[in-house]
Amino acid sequence: MPGVRVTELHSYLAARRELVQEALEKSLPPEESYPPAIHRAMRYSLFAGGKRLRPILVLAAGEAAGSLLAPLLPAACAVELIHTYSLIHDDLPAMDNDDYRRGRLTCHKVYGEAIAILAGDALLTQAFAVLSQVPDGIAPARVLQAVTELALAAGSQGLIGGQVVDMEAEERPVALETVNYIHSHKTGSLIRACLRLGGIMGGADAEQLALLARYGETLGMAFQIMDDILDIEGDFSTMGKAGGVDAARGKATYPACLGLEKARGAAGQLCNEAQDIASTLGAAAEPLRLIAGYVLNRQG
Amino acid sequence: MPGVRVTELHSYLAARRELVQEALEKSLPPEESYPPAIHRAMRYSLFAGGKRLRPILVLAAGEAAGSLLAPLLPAACAVELIHTYSLIHDDLPAMDNDDYRRGRLTCHKVYGEAIAILAGDALLTQAFAVLSQVPDGIAPARVLQAVTELALAAGSQGLIGGQVVDMEAEERPVALETVNYIHSHKTGSLIRACLRLGGIMGGADAEQLALLARYGETLGMAFQIMDDILDIEGDFSTMGKAGGVDAARGKATYPACLGLEKARGAAGQLCNEAQDIASTLGAAAEPLRLIAGYVLNRQG
Repeated sequence: MPGVRVTELHSYLAARRELVQEALEKSLPPEESYPPAIHRAMRYSLFAGGKRLRPILVLAAGEAAGSLLAPLLPAACAVELIHTYSLIHDDLPAMDNDDYRRGRLTCHKVYGEAIAILAGDALLTQAFAVLSQVPDGIAPARVLQAVTELALAAGSQGLIGGQVVDMEAEERPVALETVNYIHSHKTGSLIRACLRLGGIMGGADAEQLALLARYGETLGMAFQIMDDILDIEGDFSTMGKAGGVDAARGKATYPACLGLEKARGAAGQLCNEAQDIASTLGAAAEPLRLIAGYVLNRQG
Repeated sequence: MPGVRVTELHSYLAARRELVQEALEKSLPPEESYPPAIHRAMRYSLFAGGKRLRPILVLAAGEAAGSLLAPLLPAACAVELIHTYSLIHDDLPAMDNDDYRRGRLTCHKVYGEAIAILAGDALLTQAFAVLSQVPDGIAPARVLQAVTELALAAGSQGLIGGQVVDMEAEERPVALETVNYIHSHKTGSLIRACLRLGGIMGGADAEQLALLARYGETLGMAFQIMDDILDIEGDFSTMGKAGGVDAARGKATYPACLGLEKARGAAGQLCNEAQDIASTLGAAAEPLRLIAGYVLNRQG
């Protein structure tokens, strides 16, 4: 709740995760809705045990702006639907060709490639159906701004642009500038959008929105660098997917460009910055401050 | 323009097509925007010589409700972006595996499968970025309603649901009921949405919206039955793709269920119904009345 100092990040995250989980349950048609093949596949991937970091960031950003939780839930669900679609499509044989994700078979391994493509399409589409519901007491113009921002963040000059450059960068030497582009787009733009959407739906003023955006950019970059590091250090039991995959594929990563120690240093610095920004946002942004510490120390 | 009786359907369609073309040009980032690979692929498919029937239906529906054209253009572009994405994904090797579309190589044949998947994703996403721009003088709540309706029409219980059932129906005997589901969802829901979106953005009242929806359902079904018929009768030169493909694939079609003559009769009856509904909508719906005749007589 806004203003309450959160001393127990883990119980905060668990409580928020439960709230998000309930809202996500209602954000898709029931599993047996016709045609069931697509709804099963959508639910299989949406309820695959994700940490729900993105929707929790939406909630935390809205709370930092003084909002109650209920009006933030459609936006929280929308970003998770987009995130899930992007994972399904990234895992496809034509893309990363991954058999496992979070320790389970990927969508196309279970349901076939055609249904996996369509399940991704349907999750992406559903994100906008969910986001366009106007919560009580929120001006429709704000919701429309959220729709625009989410679409741009997920589009060809955001998340998808990052995925394109990531694919192009495989198997050739890549400058740090390119790695920065990939990270700030493939991962960063959606994380930034989480913070912006939470702020927009939560009634943030222009100054708060700018701070939330900066927090999102900083945290998103730290998050992706840690992801690169965990890919090297992690193994199947903690990551739910094979470790060392990026290196084997010649993926453009921070550790590949800078070495492991410098990469870790960069992530630490970014998390400190994010914590400072959260402090500037005030007491109600305490969860955001703690989440920045969590990102730095996560194990999977 | 509203109220003007259109005697020359072809010049009406040509003028509207030009307007749509200009608006579509501005609806995507320039071709060389970074990363160019995705923007080239998006534009390749969006500017592949489509008839722009769907955006013209948006304009005609809005005009029938007494609207000017400018406020209708974002919605007109949005439906064409969705239509184009659905064609790109339908053509993929995992789906229909088509090499040609409108006489040109399909997106994945030119740009590869990964870029084609992402170009489809990006067009779908961009549809919502474009639609969420509020035209001058339109209430944001109306635009949000349009966003919701488009997302539902394109989603797992609309267009995508139709594609799923269509794939499942290949190579097995299919009841007319199933063909009806496929047609009313795979083709019908987006065409219905064109009429609804035009009405919503054009300020239609509830009664007009209901008539527009019914016109859309009727026309959409007629359109798809004619498509099935043209697939049998057409050849590469008029259709821009191989003829007889549906039969070779064991696709669920109207002619396969009813025979060619009964299918043609059904299409004719639906077009008559659509014309009657357009007449009820009044003089400003004259283009809609004429378009129903055009759908029945089209050759490709």
